[in-house]
Amino acid sequence: MRYGFGIDVGGTTVKIGFFQENGILLRNWEIPTDHTMDGKNVLPDIAASVAACCKEADIPLKEILGAGVGVPGPVDHSGTVNRCINVGWGIVNIPASLSPLIGGVPVAAGNDANVAALGEAWMGGGKGFRSMVMATLGTGIGGGIILDGKILHGAHGVAGEIGHITIRRNETVPCNCGKCGCAEQYASATGIVRTARRMLEENPLPSVLRKKDSFSCKDVFDAGYAGDRLAENILAQVYDDIGLFLADACCVIDPEIIVLGGGVSKAGPRLLEGVRERYRHYMFHAGRDTPFALARLGNDAGIFGAFKMLLEQ
Amino acid sequence: MRYGFGIDVGGTTVKIGFFQENGILLRNWEIPTDHTMDGKNVLPDIAASVAACCKEADIPLKEILGAGVGVPGPVDHSGTVNRCINVGWGIVNIPASLSPLIGGVPVAAGNDANVAALGEAWMGGGKGFRSMVMATLGTGIGGGIILDGKILHGAHGVAGEIGHITIRRNETVPCNCGKCGCAEQYASATGIVRTARRMLEENPLPSVLRKKDSFSCKDVFDAGYAGDRLAENILAQVYDDIGLFLADACCVIDPEIIVLGGGVSKAGPRLLEGVRERYRHYMFHAGRDTPFALARLGNDAGIFGAFKMLLEQ
Repeated sequence: MRYGFGIDVGGTTVKIGFFQENGILLRNWEIPTDHTMDGKNVLPDIAASVAACCKEADIPLKEILGAGVGVPGPVDHSGTVNRCINVGWGIVNIPASLSPLIGGVPVAAGNDANVAALGEAWMGGGKGFRSMVMATLGTGIGGGIILDGKILHGAHGVAGEIGHITIRRNETVPCNCGKCGCAEQYASATGIVRTARRMLEENPLPSVLRKKDSFSCKDVFDAGYAGDRLAENILAQVYDDIGLFLADACCVIDPEIIVLGGGVSKAGPRLLEGVRERYRHYMFHAGRDTPFALARLGNDAGIFGAFKMLLEQ
Repeated sequence: MRYGFGIDVGGTTVKIGFFQENGILLRNWEIPTDHTMDGKNVLPDIAASVAACCKEADIPLKEILGAGVGVPGPVDHSGTVNRCINVGWGIVNIPASLSPLIGGVPVAAGNDANVAALGEAWMGGGKGFRSMVMATLGTGIGGGIILDGKILHGAHGVAGEIGHITIRRNETVPCNCGKCGCAEQYASATGIVRTARRMLEENPLPSVLRKKDSFSCKDVFDAGYAGDRLAENILAQVYDDIGLFLADACCVIDPEIIVLGGGVSKAGPRLLEGVRERYRHYMFHAGRDTPFALARLGNDAGIFGAFKMLLEQ
């Protein structure tokens, strides 16, 4: 049996998983992300942590399979990330920078949303399927496309950016990406709150949401699930928006399964069913019965996917 | 040097190309599509024509590389087509049915729009690029996705159906596919005429298009290119619609190149430039500079792609 690492670099912590070749997670832990000096300590900190783990497990560093690394930014085919604002990096070639620090073993790098999708395809909600569209509904909307068990990166690292499919041409407020009308503006956790605020303003119906100075995405789901009529209308709009951009993506890819992850997906099977009904409405007939699943690995999707990416390299 | 056939089955004629292994087209011709008796003569007619060509070229049938076949219907991984209305077929496994009629050589089958996209990627507008999104703007809108030089079929033969991306949720008239608001309803040749009729009704501006009892898609482009103001507005709307669904598709795939083909693409570089400007507006920033090209093989794209599909099998 051989061993390797799956590493998920985030803005606050770096998650590290120590894996057997067959995908068994032996140990996982976190270290803080050191933003000082443009993030120059991040890779050395990872290397030290990896080396300590190998020493403890009594495995020479040079004998490990290597490390896969997911990072919060666009990554090209050479493993070069072009600006990670949350980490402090400018342009960094991850394999060239990290590999010499861990005995010259192979290093693979990819975008964190894509890597998390690969993790879910390998050991989570998409397990057993060869192709998958995944939407990570969090603060923003991340996406990942898996084809034949591998990440589709695209020519500019843009493949799978399904949160930036335009679903409203008349939007005047810009998305974080700079353009207007992206799915992320309506169906991410922040987008759902925004949708709710707009519908509360436009609509005279009473609602428990009006009684709060501010409310969260979870509050909207809680109110809707509890039978608050206006919150139900808001959720219907959200399901319609998510169903639409997923159908658009699936017209292009036609995957074996669609997986929903991220914080919003904690709204569970009722969310899934609501989205699926609208997906079926918008989807080309031959792809209408594509199954849906919830993500299953939670915050571990990144380390699983990062290790799998190394294996697939 | 070895030889093979690329075959494009259409509703009126079957186009057949006789190729050298290196992609040189030696000869091409057409035979009529015999719709009688649920199209049961179509494959035997193809086999006879292929056999006659080999005899003339003095090549034993068994020594050819085989035949690739594009058909106007959804084709699964086994080469089984599920209803070709234009041909009369129900469920037909093309390789199992055709191969025994031509000496048992390999036969590959695929959807005609996908196969035409592969032809353009191999020897046409997408030559030299490894990944491509192609939109065939004809009576309907066909699409094809090429990744790593191969057709993306999808789990249900739906991949690349970019003409059925929903671009208007408030549409009440159904598309030929049964759902409402598909790009095909506005930006195919028939869709452009429909868009023009609607805008002529809604708008008081004078236009040369009002002087005709009926007009074609070409008439709309001719009027717009000649400076007719209302026709210019119609074309601006059409460019916006095409730019939008292409940006949606490219957010998902992120190809190296985008190719426009089909009858509408005869409107040429001005169409391409108009669409590209709107594509850039709707596209996620990192993919905004993806190049556009016009298809180059015209009606021969299908035979080129069919032969290439055989080579890639």
